[in-house]
Amino acid sequence: MDRIGIEELIRELATLDYQKMYNNDFLLTWEKSIDEISATFTVAEILRGMREQNISSRIFDSGLGVSLFRDNSTRTRFSFTSACNLLGLEVQDLDEGKSQIAHGETVRETANMVSFMADVIGIRDDMYIGKGNAYMRNVARSVQSGHDEGVLEQRPTLVNLQCDIDHPTQSMSDMLHIIKHFGGIENLAGKRIAMTWAYSPSYGKPLSVPQGVIGLMTRFGMDVALAHPEGYEVMPEVEEVAARQAAESGGRFTKSNSMAEAFQDADIVYPKSWAPFAAMEKRTDLYGENDMDGIKALERELLSQNKKHMNWTCTEELMATTHNGSALYMHCLPADISGVSCEHGEVEASVFDRYRVAQYKEASYKPYIIAAMIFLSKQKNSADILQSLMDRATPRMF
Amino acid sequence: MDRIGIEELIRELATLDYQKMYNNDFLLTWEKSIDEISATFTVAEILRGMREQNISSRIFDSGLGVSLFRDNSTRTRFSFTSACNLLGLEVQDLDEGKSQIAHGETVRETANMVSFMADVIGIRDDMYIGKGNAYMRNVARSVQSGHDEGVLEQRPTLVNLQCDIDHPTQSMSDMLHIIKHFGGIENLAGKRIAMTWAYSPSYGKPLSVPQGVIGLMTRFGMDVALAHPEGYEVMPEVEEVAARQAAESGGRFTKSNSMAEAFQDADIVYPKSWAPFAAMEKRTDLYGENDMDGIKALERELLSQNKKHMNWTCTEELMATTHNGSALYMHCLPADISGVSCEHGEVEASVFDRYRVAQYKEASYKPYIIAAMIFLSKQKNSADILQSLMDRATPRMF
Amino acid sequence: MDRIGIEELIRELATLDYQKMYNNDFLLTWEKSIDEISATFTVAEILRGMREQNISSRIFDSGLGVSLFRDNSTRTRFSFTSACNLLGLEVQDLDEGKSQIAHGETVRETANMVSFMADVIGIRDDMYIGKGNAYMRNVARSVQSGHDEGVLEQRPTLVNLQCDIDHPTQSMSDMLHIIKHFGGIENLAGKRIAMTWAYSPSYGKPLSVPQGVIGLMTRFGMDVALAHPEGYEVMPEVEEVAARQAAESGGRFTKSNSMAEAFQDADIVYPKSWAPFAAMEKRTDLYGENDMDGIKALERELLSQNKKHMNWTCTEELMATTHNGSALYMHCLPADISGVSCEHGEVEASVFDRYRVAQYKEASYKPYIIAAMIFLSKQKNSADILQSLMDRATPRMF
Repeated sequence: MDRIGIEELIRELATLDYQKMYNNDFLLTWEKSIDEISATFTVAEILRGMREQNISSRIFDSGLGVSLFRDNSTRTRFSFTSACNLLGLEVQDLDEGKSQIAHGETVRETANMVSFMADVIGIRDDMYIGKGNAYMRNVARSVQSGHDEGVLEQRPTLVNLQCDIDHPTQSMSDMLHIIKHFGGIENLAGKRIAMTWAYSPSYGKPLSVPQGVIGLMTRFGMDVALAHPEGYEVMPEVEEVAARQAAESGGRFTKSNSMAEAFQDADIVYPKSWAPFAAMEKRTDLYGENDMDGIKALERELLSQNKKHMNWTCTEELMATTHNGSALYMHCLPADISGVSCEHGEVEASVFDRYRVAQYKEASYKPYIIAAMIFLSKQKNSADILQSLMDRATPRMF
Repeated sequence: MDRIGIEELIRELATLDYQKMYNNDFLLTWEKSIDEISATFTVAEILRGMREQNISSRIFDSGLGVSLFRDNSTRTRFSFTSACNLLGLEVQDLDEGKSQIAHGETVRETANMVSFMADVIGIRDDMYIGKGNAYMRNVARSVQSGHDEGVLEQRPTLVNLQCDIDHPTQSMSDMLHIIKHFGGIENLAGKRIAMTWAYSPSYGKPLSVPQGVIGLMTRFGMDVALAHPEGYEVMPEVEEVAARQAAESGGRFTKSNSMAEAFQDADIVYPKSWAPFAAMEKRTDLYGENDMDGIKALERELLSQNKKHMNWTCTEELMATTHNGSALYMHCLPADISGVSCEHGEVEASVFDRYRVAQYKEASYKPYIIAAMIFLSKQKNSADILQSLMDRATPRMF
Repeated sequence: MDRIGIEELIRELATLDYQKMYNNDFLLTWEKSIDEISATFTVAEILRGMREQNISSRIFDSGLGVSLFRDNSTRTRFSFTSACNLLGLEVQDLDEGKSQIAHGETVRETANMVSFMADVIGIRDDMYIGKGNAYMRNVARSVQSGHDEGVLEQRPTLVNLQCDIDHPTQSMSDMLHIIKHFGGIENLAGKRIAMTWAYSPSYGKPLSVPQGVIGLMTRFGMDVALAHPEGYEVMPEVEEVAARQAAESGGRFTKSNSMAEAFQDADIVYPKSWAPFAAMEKRTDLYGENDMDGIKALERELLSQNKKHMNWTCTEELMATTHNGSALYMHCLPADISGVSCEHGEVEASVFDRYRVAQYKEASYKPYIIAAMIFLSKQKNSADILQSLMDRATPRMF
């Protein structure tokens, strides 16, 4: 994108109503208005364009981004660091080690203690149903009261880097990829996306990806088909959100227990393993009771349950049933690829390979999506500030 | 604080004799003159004021801050990172892993190897009596000779992030909190502070906090009352420092074995658990002999010894005996709060809660205290440089 | 060095043919032309001079340096961080944890996923013969195709921080030390360097140091004498490189099984332990077969084999046989010093001590060598850019 393209996007941004994102967290996409979602995409594209043009978008001369990963992460960790770095923030990781933060008292204290110079806090906490998003809100309340009470000079913004409910930085990157693939948000109405379960030989993958997808894609008039084997239900609250949003946007939200049905005539397919919601809830309880034998038994049970559905895999045969036989294949990565990373997995190697570059590009939006979330929460008049950065034109590389 | 207030503080700073802090370490508060201590507080407040006014105090375009934590840390780690980041230094942690640095030879080598581009080295080494501070001085000597011999272009400054003797970044933050609470250093003469032991169900907390407090607070004409059960003595050398300083400053330093006596009419109370000095010495020897059974036996002995003094806890009843029943309660955090983080601990929940915000503010000074220590060791004419930064007026956030 | 000296070096740099280093990796010194090697030394000295003159050489306003250490590292880790920081890049470490990256597929994916905002990737992978350098080339290919396919806006440069074949950041630092010691590259012809094995009570030290030394020092007309006990051969491919280069440069490359012979009349000695190439190959296979008993047996065998050669140690007696009894002693550090870090080791304490400061200076070049490698790969017209930085004259410390 050239400078003229970037400045056009800045003018588009100026027409959107995004000011409520200022000093506000990004926890669930469905809490954001369509204008706010669009502003996030627009700022992400502006920041990417500026970087391509070697124009620095650094707005902080100092400041920290605090990261807290309660689950392993490579992609999102690098995306968060990249986003913070792009804007001028240094990442300091909060490594809880073995110590569990046990009660509200300590969350409040820790949240304040790490935030004296923090402009953003990014948290991944996706393992326990009912816990992750609640924890983020607890941290958000804690730093808000710290700011109100004069403890914190600035109010760090919370960015959800994946919780038990949503994975907004992923679904937003996915969505931006879709928008660009179909040439604009205005072309999405009626497009069919199959968000389906797929077999994987591993256990306990979080539900936040399918939930994030149905919670976001239903807002743009798309035909969102969720499919999974019986027993692999996602959180009912998120299904309700999806159904409501589909109705509002003139789209459709359907559920089935057939991968083939979902793929039929689909424009986009997103086959991906996840653990059943009920099993994740049970696991959360078992962890609460510290019942390690129970957890191991549950794991065995889930793996053998998974095995009954090994035919849920994204084959060339299934791909041929999609719209013109050429649906866009998507995955949040890393995928379990049959014959490559495992014997039987979520997708056939030939399908994966055909979409490899597209998927890497899909992933490449995440740093910009996160940077956009931070930018919009820190700059009330983001459009003006972005134009000032264009005028300042500090080179990213001298 | 507004710009006028900041510039007034800069003029105040210019009247102080702080030039010997240039290229010098910060290891023990009692090695610093009153002017140097005051300069540190003043620069800390200036830096905080500048940040509040969105004026960058970044003085480094590149450079590293090396951190070495030989004990767990969240608060001080984030404070050190925040301080370095505020001034433009990136933190690189030296993670020794399991490998103990065993002899002077290797300390000298490691200290030089990590310092080629280091402007500051922050060390926490608080577990072994007679070792931590000695290690810091060894590192300081090593980088000094490295600098003298032409190995290091710059001489990194050592900042004591807690040793076996003192915890200067903590006691200085505590002191700045007290100064602001009582409206100025000039109002402290005669104020009574009770630095007392308190019961905790944990074992082996370092002595550096009480030692740091009696080693600093005795310099301002205050009435410093140290109280602990028999057997919980602190290092005699530090008691001597406290006694001498109290005499010089027109204050008082007393010792007793009664929490009630210390609290009586106190303006400030600081009830906090620590391990007996003699036991810490014994533990150091046991570690030296690698006597793990001995260490476990000592631990059991200390925990059961602690239990005899469960009545050493900061209750509302005791608080009522302080000056006007409203002494300032202080703690370095995290506190062991009865009924919250443990069954019986250092303080009753209602007392802690009443002072929670005050304590968070107390903690919020630490990044600025550390930044001030670094600033004064790096800039000979700190007052002039700070005024130049005010004139430059680079915004911290664009 | 003063500003005039720096600007002279910049003019010298302008006469060299280094443009092919632009957007190119630094994997093996013998893949680089003499001009490119010289340019690297020259830029390293310019960057050091600028830092001494408090002139910032920061060329990045944002950007990441990704580090991947598959073996422990303190020196090189700090050197890489220092180099990145000097140029304005923030280091984000890729911690693979226990997860081994198993096949090309995943290398390609991981390499792209961490590189969206990466300008440089530094890798240490020195443990397995035939693997480390191959892995780096795999990563290089992966990010090249990512860049070609539009996934990565910039093509991160690979810097070899030690592989199974070469340790270019070490040998280049060693070489710069030699150049400065002898007053210029033009004084090196005919100088004799003894690169010899030495006894150490530890096991499995990488071969990349001796290989790196014979692969670089043979290019300057030097008389390079490799000596080791029978069975401690290095990779034959690197010996061939050394022999060819020695012939081309008018130097000499000899091999022997006698430390005394190599030391005889040497101008430089580099006594250093390493594992036999054949044993490292065997170990690589055993790891491949996950044969832990086999690995332990091999370890015992190697330690006892080492013990037969305890007389391979750098004594004062041997040093007396060198040219004028005053050869320059070198080591990549840390050395196994007899009576200091072990009972019997690579070098006598009195020899080591006499050259301690010289060795620390040797080590001090590494951050600048790495920074020069990055600089030359990022700036096509490095001479012009360096002159612009001199003219810009931003102070490193305000």
